[in-house]
Amino acid sequence: MDEAAKKTALRMIPYGLFVMTVKDGNTMTGAAVNWLTQASFQPPLVVLGAKADAPSTGMIERSGLFNINVMETGQVGIASAFFKHVEPQGNKFGEIEFSLSPNGLPVLRDALAWFECRVREKVAIGDHTIFVGEVVEAGVQREGEPLTLAETGFKYGG
Amino acid sequence: MDEAAKKTALRMIPYGLFVMTVKDGNTMTGAAVNWLTQASFQPPLVVLGAKADAPSTGMIERSGLFNINVMETGQVGIASAFFKHVEPQGNKFGEIEFSLSPNGLPVLRDALAWFECRVREKVAIGDHTIFVGEVVEAGVQREGEPLTLAETGFKYGG
Repeated sequence: MDEAAKKTALRMIPYGLFVMTVKDGNTMTGAAVNWLTQASFQPPLVVLGAKADAPSTGMIERSGLFNINVMETGQVGIASAFFKHVEPQGNKFGEIEFSLSPNGLPVLRDALAWFECRVREKVAIGDHTIFVGEVVEAGVQREGEPLTLAETGFKYGG
Repeated sequence: MDEAAKKTALRMIPYGLFVMTVKDGNTMTGAAVNWLTQASFQPPLVVLGAKADAPSTGMIERSGLFNINVMETGQVGIASAFFKHVEPQGNKFGEIEFSLSPNGLPVLRDALAWFECRVREKVAIGDHTIFVGEVVEAGVQREGEPLTLAETGFKYGG
């Protein structure tokens, strides 16, 4: 395989940039993710590729739940705050306020929308763990255009 | 769950619009797909959600291979030709020419790039079959910006 072509071709896949939040016992955190797609209407399934060695991934494995916060165009600053491991103080990650979803996962105040997923299947054959999650709760906080990875100038793929 | 919120939230996920091609014995076809994401760097994995009852999906299951053609911004007309089942005549799907990838799958002449995937895992719990494919071959035909689902005005999600 032509490794350079593989990298260039895979980087052409368009993505959003989301903040995935998770809760495990009394611990909560969030992580910026872009490897996300819907994968069924009925039941409503999504697939998330999450870095296998990230603390948040272990929390998904233990809790069986994750929440996707859909960020708005222009909110690269909020998403970037979740590139490193973060822990909340009260109802804030740094300056970023959140409320709680029905199952107690953080919903960022500034997100356009969110959907909470229950893990149905897990595939662990690569450096990212593939979670197939069923959407079990969802909310829309306001209308707007989603944040795309392209607009941020970041690359994650290849 | 608030079904309207679920639909609105899931439709906020940004996507590309690709042409997936497949070969099974002497039969070849293509299908427009958007539920696609990378899911590992090492090995390079992608995840495709493919309509469970589509002929092309059965062909993936039997052959264990699929090829993703990355289309260019503005090529909605080419992608749309693959909304219905198509069969080639010679080296064309209608007016759309193709060559063959190393494993004999159609590579659209007008695609920016392509990557051939070998199925590693399959999850069949929804109305779409989730294929985890390892990228085994790839090519770049020219530089350019990828076609996004947003620019086409089509919705597939929710």
